[in-house]
Amino acid sequence: MISVVILGSGNVATHLIHAFLKIDSIHLKQVYTRNLTDVASLKSTVPTINDLSLLEQADITIIAVSDDAIAAISSNIKNSLVVHTSGTVEMNALNNSGNKGVFYLLQSFSKEKEVDFTNIPICLEAENKNDLIKLEKLASLLQGTIYHLSSIQRKKIHVAAVFVNNFTNHMYAIAHDICEDHDVPFNILQPLIQETSQKIKNLTPKQAQTGPAKRNDTETIKNHLNLLSKTQQELYLKITQSIQDHGKKL
Amino acid sequence: MISVVILGSGNVATHLIHAFLKIDSIHLKQVYTRNLTDVASLKSTVPTINDLSLLEQADITIIAVSDDAIAAISSNIKNSLVVHTSGTVEMNALNNSGNKGVFYLLQSFSKEKEVDFTNIPICLEAENKNDLIKLEKLASLLQGTIYHLSSIQRKKIHVAAVFVNNFTNHMYAIAHDICEDHDVPFNILQPLIQETSQKIKNLTPKQAQTGPAKRNDTETIKNHLNLLSKTQQELYLKITQSIQDHGKKL
Repeated sequence: MISVVILGSGNVATHLIHAFLKIDSIHLKQVYTRNLTDVASLKSTVPTINDLSLLEQADITIIAVSDDAIAAISSNIKNSLVVHTSGTVEMNALNNSGNKGVFYLLQSFSKEKEVDFTNIPICLEAENKNDLIKLEKLASLLQGTIYHLSSIQRKKIHVAAVFVNNFTNHMYAIAHDICEDHDVPFNILQPLIQETSQKIKNLTPKQAQTGPAKRNDTETIKNHLNLLSKTQQELYLKITQSIQDHGKKL
Repeated sequence: MISVVILGSGNVATHLIHAFLKIDSIHLKQVYTRNLTDVASLKSTVPTINDLSLLEQADITIIAVSDDAIAAISSNIKNSLVVHTSGTVEMNALNNSGNKGVFYLLQSFSKEKEVDFTNIPICLEAENKNDLIKLEKLASLLQGTIYHLSSIQRKKIHVAAVFVNNFTNHMYAIAHDICEDHDVPFNILQPLIQETSQKIKNLTPKQAQTGPAKRNDTETIKNHLNLLSKTQQELYLKITQSIQDHGKKL
């Protein structure tokens, strides 16, 4: 049995709470949030508090609040092992008096969409071996895939995640605009979108790269630019340039 | 029974040939290519020729060669219905004496990876209803999803495809570089990559957009820039700007 308390009511906190409640060998003792109405639906399943002085001791105390609130909230916690769930905040930004650690889930969470924790990468950091073992146990109970990352590695991976998630989604958004402007359903692109993400399960992105930028097809690039709006053109040119520069690297 | 001949030995030609050979009600009569060694492996299954004057008549003649070779090769063909498979070339670029059409498969093809034709979007264009029916029949036999696109719509979709395929893959490539530079396996990003592409099956890209650019989190953006190389920074800034401009649109 492993006991946890969670601070927060955002996406990550919410998904963790629901995952913990389903696992028998995890005892979710309390959920703290400033505004109890945010967690009103939990009331019957787990004690909720909005006063940090009421926080109980637990094997692992998880701070899942916004990045800029982590330092302040942690300074009021006296529990033995306190971890945050941020991709960008250093472990040492925690100001609690006890031990520190990180429990970062590398996945995109939306409140409206249920998350399958199986194989979710869980990036762990701790100050000592014993704490790391506790975090590994919790990550295993969630059936995540465990990675040990330092604070600097985690920050770098968080930027990489922005490229594959936020920026990729923006590529979809531009394509969506183009479809809409010409009365073509966006769904026409779904098989290509899925194939593009499937392909790199077996090929490196460099091996998978195709298209006019890669083969330096200036005629097609010129034709494409003529079909785009000014802001789309700028983006097209910058990414095309980046693909060509990238191709020159070993 | 529908009879076809194919001109070409590239990715699209190769995948079409193999698909056609598996379907009983399609009779692949001939494959033309300039260099017969490219299609040597086909010899036992279908007649191969490298002399256009030997080309036989067929219900549909498919030109699956590079874009800039379509006009020239088509001017030597007298068959009844001649189509090309390009996303960017107009139907009227065909110079054959008979009827013209387009049979464009909106998917990314690699020689090394087998393609499942089921539900592949097949974009059709023809000069008359009868020809369109012939092309629809062929597309149905391949179990593709049929779209009727004009030449201008097809060109636009081809640019949209560059965004969701080539440019998205480049986002993966940058992330791959970041992982490699910091000794983190690229596979840590696979669940996020798959989730990102799955998400837009049910949400529009605009609804699915998250991240520091979207929420105008200048502190995180600044921190991210500090972690990137100069060329990565330029790309990061341009896409961040584009996300922010996009968010302002209705």
